[in-house]
Amino acid sequence: MTYGLGLYLHDGIVLTADTRTNAGVDHVATVEKISLFQTAGERVMMLASAGNLATTQAVVTLLNQRLAQPDSPYNLNTARTMFDAATMVGGVLREVMDTNAKYVAGYGDASASFLFAGQIAGGRHRLFQIYSAGNFIEASADTPFLQIGETKYGKPILDRAMTYGISLSEAVKLTLISFDATVRSNLSVAPPFDMAVYRRDSIGPVKARRIPENDDYFHTIRSRYSSSIQEMVRNLPLNDWDECQ
Amino acid sequence: MTYGLGLYLHDGIVLTADTRTNAGVDHVATVEKISLFQTAGERVMMLASAGNLATTQAVVTLLNQRLAQPDSPYNLNTARTMFDAATMVGGVLREVMDTNAKYVAGYGDASASFLFAGQIAGGRHRLFQIYSAGNFIEASADTPFLQIGETKYGKPILDRAMTYGISLSEAVKLTLISFDATVRSNLSVAPPFDMAVYRRDSIGPVKARRIPENDDYFHTIRSRYSSSIQEMVRNLPLNDWDECQ
Repeated sequence: MTYGLGLYLHDGIVLTADTRTNAGVDHVATVEKISLFQTAGERVMMLASAGNLATTQAVVTLLNQRLAQPDSPYNLNTARTMFDAATMVGGVLREVMDTNAKYVAGYGDASASFLFAGQIAGGRHRLFQIYSAGNFIEASADTPFLQIGETKYGKPILDRAMTYGISLSEAVKLTLISFDATVRSNLSVAPPFDMAVYRRDSIGPVKARRIPENDDYFHTIRSRYSSSIQEMVRNLPLNDWDECQ
Repeated sequence: MTYGLGLYLHDGIVLTADTRTNAGVDHVATVEKISLFQTAGERVMMLASAGNLATTQAVVTLLNQRLAQPDSPYNLNTARTMFDAATMVGGVLREVMDTNAKYVAGYGDASASFLFAGQIAGGRHRLFQIYSAGNFIEASADTPFLQIGETKYGKPILDRAMTYGISLSEAVKLTLISFDATVRSNLSVAPPFDMAVYRRDSIGPVKARRIPENDDYFHTIRSRYSSSIQEMVRNLPLNDWDECQ
């Protein structure tokens, strides 16, 4: 399993994925699930993947190979808008699914999904979620986060605290709390996490940061959050119901 | 969808379910999902159900009808232990599934699951989760909560704060926070909630309490929790990463 999270902010985008992949509990490995496609000053694109690893690796590899093919309809370097670029990612995903899904069906699920974000000079910064069918939706000020993979455990804290107006630093903090909740509840999601922080209108270059389990800041956030929440719950009032006395 | 939660404590058991049922978003209703089977001083049994409503209602109805059938192998009044009683509930579920599942398969999923808890005089208080297959697992001091239905959104707070040693009042508080997280994240779970609080060795009678959306105590907990958690997250330190400055 994977947990991938994209936060869409006035100030930019924070895109994060864990790095655990597993085919059964005895076949666990660490893989990079965030890929960057960028030409500093011109375009920055960030892709987080979830789902069948053969499918996601094929999509990322084909997208990379086609950067050098000027005539390819799936060359991210030639996309005029982020919408067109998202359409290309969806198109390559469809191509990989068309080629593989029927052979994989007997063994498991070939499907995959992506968070795709970035900015092309002259355009807005944008964040999309690309479904296994290759179609996609876009984040907005009203829907400022998108999730893929094991999404539920990490959602309540976002529903409570995530808004379009928070800072990049605050968004990193919320991301780590959301990932910590997921890691605690699902063994198949685990650090290290890969995180790309993009400041709006900077047009790169972006560097993905790897956050290991023993990262100082992650450790501070998770331990303080955990102790604070326990204390805070203890301080909430008790009921006066007869059946509890 | 349903969210059902059973907390297993040294002091007793808190069993809760929401009351929303839906077959599509335009067919939503309120139903009771907690059933009680009890003879005060002798036995108390509490059942929370999730899944196909026709299946769960058939199981509950058959269990009730058989209370008056001394020779039935599925008469909860004749169960000698809570384990035997859980086996009966699983048996009736298998019977209903055997009768209906193949006819329902073309239209949807007939499966259902239960939380089943209580105490028979002379025995321990116990909490079980009964799977759709009719088999079951039991809560323990190490695994002090069990969930059915839409379980994920409400799990992080339990992973952080729920232990076997907390009081019944504290368990009610955690239950309401867990339900509030689920309600915020999934429209198909909603108040009112039905909650049965059982104090160990009291052997009943238990009365299920209905908690509407405007319940004073629920309102206090959800509003204070929400504002406290937002303030607490704001007070956590920010990072000093270059990319966030």
